[in-house]
Order: sequence, then C-alpha cells, then structure tokens
Amino acid sequence: MELTWLEGGITAVQGIEAGAVAAGFKQGSRRTDLALVVADKTCAAAGVFTRNIFCAAPVTVSRTHLADGTARAVLLNSGNANAATGKQGMDVAQGSAQCVAEALGCRDEDVLVASTGVIGVPLDLALFEVNVPKAVAALSPTGGPDAARAIMTTDTVSKEAAVCYEYDGIAYVVGGMAKGSGMIMPDMATMLAVLTTDAPVGVIALKTALKAAVDVSFNKVTVDSDTSTNDSCYLLATGAAGGMEVLGPCDAYDAFVAALTAVCESLAKQIAQDGEGASRLISVHVAGAASDADADLCARAIANSPLVKTAIAGHDANWGRIAMAAGKSGAVFMQEDVDIDIMGIPVCRKGLTVPFDEEEALKRFEEPEIAIRVDLGAGEVQTDIWTCDLTHEYISINGDYRT
Amino acid sequence: MELTWLEGGITAVQGIEAGAVAAGFKQGSRRTDLALVVADKTCAAAGVFTRNIFCAAPVTVSRTHLADGTARAVLLNSGNANAATGKQGMDVAQGSAQCVAEALGCRDEDVLVASTGVIGVPLDLALFEVNVPKAVAALSPTGGPDAARAIMTTDTVSKEAAVCYEYDGIAYVVGGMAKGSGMIMPDMATMLAVLTTDAPVGVIALKTALKAAVDVSFNKVTVDSDTSTNDSCYLLATGAAGGMEVLGPCDAYDAFVAALTAVCESLAKQIAQDGEGASRLISVHVAGAASDADADLCARAIANSPLVKTAIAGHDANWGRIAMAAGKSGAVFMQEDVDIDIMGIPVCRKGLTVPFDEEEALKRFEEPEIAIRVDLGAGEVQTDIWTCDLTHEYISINGDYRT
Repeated sequence: MELTWLEGGITAVQGIEAGAVAAGFKQGSRRTDLALVVADKTCAAAGVFTRNIFCAAPVTVSRTHLADGTARAVLLNSGNANAATGKQGMDVAQGSAQCVAEALGCRDEDVLVASTGVIGVPLDLALFEVNVPKAVAALSPTGGPDAARAIMTTDTVSKEAAVCYEYDGIAYVVGGMAKGSGMIMPDMATMLAVLTTDAPVGVIALKTALKAAVDVSFNKVTVDSDTSTNDSCYLLATGAAGGMEVLGPCDAYDAFVAALTAVCESLAKQIAQDGEGASRLISVHVAGAASDADADLCARAIANSPLVKTAIAGHDANWGRIAMAAGKSGAVFMQEDVDIDIMGIPVCRKGLTVPFDEEEALKRFEEPEIAIRVDLGAGEVQTDIWTCDLTHEYISINGDYRT
Repeated sequence: MELTWLEGGITAVQGIEAGAVAAGFKQGSRRTDLALVVADKTCAAAGVFTRNIFCAAPVTVSRTHLADGTARAVLLNSGNANAATGKQGMDVAQGSAQCVAEALGCRDEDVLVASTGVIGVPLDLALFEVNVPKAVAALSPTGGPDAARAIMTTDTVSKEAAVCYEYDGIAYVVGGMAKGSGMIMPDMATMLAVLTTDAPVGVIALKTALKAAVDVSFNKVTVDSDTSTNDSCYLLATGAAGGMEVLGPCDAYDAFVAALTAVCESLAKQIAQDGEGASRLISVHVAGAASDADADLCARAIANSPLVKTAIAGHDANWGRIAMAAGKSGAVFMQEDVDIDIMGIPVCRKGLTVPFDEEEALKRFEEPEIAIRVDLGAGEVQTDIWTCDLTHEYISINGDYRT
C-alpha cells in the first residue's frame, strides 16, 4: 500500500481542529502549555494508558470517559503531571473536562484529558476555568502544530506525523502528535500522544487497531527505562472522509492499521531521537531469537544498557558491551552462535571478535542514526527497539529539573 | 555475636598469603595487574558465578575446578576479561592455572582463575608464563592489600574487609577483597571477590554459607543495572584456627555466616560507594512489601532508575521519581498506601506530598550516604539495595573506556 506523508499533524485530518494557549502551568513561563483537540462531532475513540501503579488523575478520569468508546475533544496540559495528587487531583481532572464540555456543548464524558510535567504538585482548576475558553477560541483547522508545541516539556522539537492512503477510491488521512523525551519506556502507551483519522472505523476495530499499532511503535521505544505515570495515547476517528464503516478484520482494516502504524512508528522514532540529551538515534534490531519474548528482552536489555548507550555517545564500537547486555537479558541462546553488526560493520561472528576498520567506524558514527544488529542464532523471531545515546546532557537535564 | 573489624583483608586470615605484580595486561600501563592468593595447603572452597550467557573463559574453567570443593590458590588479572574469546580463551584460562599449579606443586584443578577488563580481546598466555613465578615470589602473609589493588580497573579505591569473631573459645577470622565499579548488577556473584577464613568449615556448609551471604550483600548492589560477563566470588576456608569442623546447620555455622555476611556486606557497600562516577552511596530500603520478590523488584527499580539517580546527584529530593519507579516495578501495592522518606525526612504520606524544609534537605545531601525509605503498605516484607548516584563522570568514564 502506498502512503503519502503530509504536513499538519493531527489537523491534516478532516473534521479535526486544534489550538493552544499559554495558561501558566509552569510558574514564570509564558510558553504555550494548554492544547485542545476537537472533532466536529462526537466520534469513535480509543485510548491506551500507562500501567504504572502511580497513574495520574487524568489517566483514571479518561479511562472512565472512554468506557463508551466515544469522544469529542482531548485537553492536554504540560508543566504539571497531576500525578500523586489524590482526590484534589481527580477533582481538577474532572473539572477541566467539564470546562471543555460546557464550552463545546457536549457531555463531560466525551472529553479526554492528559497532563505532563512535575509529579506530586497540586494543579489549580482556576487555570483551566480561565484558559479553556481561550483555547476554544484559538481552535483552527491548521492548529495541529501549535498543539504539538504546547505539550512539550524537555522535548527540544515538537513531534508530528500524518499520512494519506487510498482505499476503494477514497483518500483517508491518519495524523498524530506526541511528546516525550525523558521518563520514557512506555508500557501500553507513550507519554502523551493524540492520533486522529477521518477513516470511518467502528469502536471495537479502533481499539484493536490502536493496540496493534502501539505495540510495535511506542511500546518499542525506551529513552531511560523509566515508565511515566502519565502515558496516554488517544485516537479519534471522525469518519469525515466517508466510505463503508470498518467494523472488524478486512482489507480496509488492514490498510488503516498500516497507515496508523506508520504514523505511530514515525512519532516513536521522533521521541527516541529527541530523548533527553540524545545526540544519536539508536535502532536495535534483534534477529534469530527463539520467541517474541526473547527478542524483546534482548533488544530492550541492549537499548537500556547505560554502558552500550555511553559507548555510542563516545563513538566507540564496543561490541563486548552489546554481548554483555544480550547475555544478561534472560533470552535463551548460545554465545558461540551470536553475530553482531554495528552500523553495518561486522564486529562479532560466532561469538568472537572480527577485526574491523576503526577509521571507517568513526566515520559512520557521524550519521544521525546508529544501527545495532544482533543475530542470536537461536530461532526465527526478530524485533526492533529504538533508543538514544546517554550523554552528559541527560545528567544535566535531570540533575537540575525541579529547581 | 560480637565482630571485631581488622586490617589486612584476605591475609588477615591464618594460612593465607597473597602477592601482586605488574604483568602488562593493559598495554602501556605499569601498574600491578596480576594478583595471586594462596592457602598453605589445599582446603575447602566454594564459588558463585555470573549467570550472563556470555560468561568468560575463567568462569567456565573455575566452575569445573571447583567441582570437587577444594582449592589451593586463586589467580586474578585485571586489564583483560578473557570473555567472548572462544577456544583460545579457554586454553589461556587453563594454561594460566597450570602455571600456578606447577609453581606451587599442586593439581591444576586446585587453582581458580578470574579476569576483569575489556571483553572480546584475546589474552596472551605468555604473560602468565613469565609473571606467575614472579607473583609466587611476591607472596607474603601481609600481601592482601597489594592483591586488592592489583584487581582494580575503573575502581578509584581498593576494597577490603576483615572481621574476627569468637566461637567456643576460639578466635576465627573472615577476610575479603573485591573489585567492581561499572557493569555492576551482580546476579549470583559480584565482579570479582575473594573471601578467606581460617574457620574449619566443610564443603557443603561452605557452599550454603556463601550463597546465603552473597544473596543479601553482593546480589543487592547495582551500579548501572549491567551484569558482567566475569562475576566470580570465591571463598577459601583454611581451617587453620582449629576447632570442630562445621558440617551443617548449628550455632558455629550461624556464627560463621554472620561474620561472612558482615564482610560481604562491607565489600558490597564499598563497591556501590565507588560506582563509576559516584559522588554518593544510596541505600534503598523498601518495607511493607507483599513478598520477597516484590520488595526486591521495587527496591531494584528505584536503585536502577536513571531519573532517581540523577536527582540525587543534583541534590533534588524529587520523590515523584521514586514513586514512578516503584509504580513501574511490577510490585503490587496501592498508591494511596505509600510512604516515602528521603534522608529521614518524610516527603510522601499515603501517596501524597508532604511539605518539607528544602534547606534542611540540601544540608542532608552533604552526607556521604543517602537513605531512601519506601513503605508500600502492602505487607510485612522488607529489603535493602545499595547503589550510587549517576553523574557526568559516569558518562565520561564509559564514553571513553576502550580508546
């Protein structure tokens, strides 16, 4: 299937408007920090959330609001996570949804909410009461990029993607935005992501499609092995492009999932590439694993190893650390069956070192993406995980976050 | 039981001699890098090893040599790990044991070997053939500190401990040395450690005692979540102090295990304190867990979280990150039951923030040991894990290791 990449992120989709305002959630900051995404009418919606026990109030509230499989709007703020805030936090999350419902004339239950920022600090409902009407006034069919910028925290660039695909003579669009840079090893979802489509997809099919796409994209990213309290990923399907409604497995469903997965994978790689302090995107490809679980364990152990990540930051093709990480991962294999390539250069064959041109390796380290390929020689299963290198900048950002 | 701490490390024990020489394993370096530990006669011995699949040749050889539960000597080199080196590596590990056996007039099987350093680089047997006789000539009943220095790699200080305890009118000594600073999350053992005692402990009891002590000491340390290919921990019991032989569970066994555990815990904390780039020892105490597995999962998730570790480096009492790590750990609890203290200051009660004196917190961050205490409120089980903070220096050390 052919995919055409588009500009515009979530608002590349028919029937979706977005807007952003500066509400002052982070004291002393005047940047935009409140984003609103609205569909022209209540539509099919699905979501996946963090499995962290310290899940945030907006996660709990949105999970309830999604029970009926419909939504009209998503309200997102940066600067305060509204996590570990108890009943007060729940009241604020519900109250903020109510502000949006009143302004749009829809049910509270059709408003989803998401927050990102510092944990354990009460969030002020008054900021929503004052600023939600302004966000509604700022809504625009080209507002996607504004919304994507408003949900950034330590992100250095905003993350958007949109693709167009054709099915049965009709052009459909899937759009998305995401934020995330640190505390990133999503478990069922990512930090915050909003996906939109004008394809007419029913609620059950939408849920299944979202889980399938997230499992091979956001759930394959790790910046620092730390799973956020606020991970939320929402998908709204307006159906505005028309055509037969997609209710279950069929060719139209497959086409939609392919487009959705492409958008999710693009956003996931953008997150890894913009990991806190990152200078390089690292893609870890593990092949020859005995099972899906082994492939994931091994790739994740390599991607989370601080020794592998600092070696890449230091432009050191130190495959011994990759072998160490594979060996501790719990995946089943024999060391004498293992092949390792770094940036296309064979560095280990059958568990033993292969002499390679260090000058050539140094040259390839100048590329923005560093590919690590490990073949365990234990089976037929493969997977990809994306991460970034570990640099001084990560330490600086996180040693000096709250102050 | 009263324990008296002694100087002298492994050679504080009757019947143990040690020595070290500069053999040139690390090119261009003239520091001592070959250590030899010898008992006056072949004696009861036990060992625990890494579970990393890429285990090094000396691990495989020593496991075989320990099958009969006896040993006379331990040979250790730094500068090259002899890991991922195939058959050539096995030949060198066996050959180096043979060099020692010839010089001492004992069986090859009574020599244990251990290596630490770079992975995947062939080790030269000739260096052992030339230098083992020199190491034998350097043996001394006060050579423990020399041996402890010779096994250092990125360690900034050598690690030794020795205690004396009395049982049934006889004074017994347990001594130990260890190395380890990066690639440290031992799984059944630590990087390299040699323990000695003059207590008369039988082989079966010795194995049981070693496993019990290691499980609550070395296996509770993590510097960077990366498990080495070379972890080995050996224990030699000369019996030179006399008394009834300890063959199984009894008061004498309990006294021995208490002393052994004290030495292992001291060495384990020395390793965490000297973690690569560390400025602070962090002790994580988790209480109120529903099971041993939950307590360990939760404490380990906190100790391995780069966000927790960078917060401590930045003197930031950011308990939200501790909550995040507990919440993602897989341990079972309810967020509204959780209490968290940092350095004795209550910062979270029942899952909610507690206002605290930031000035007082900053003052307490000047202490060399930072205590994190988490009560999950889900049961009666508790555990301790030791780690260190994550600083710029860790990145510098590991971005520039091989070059």
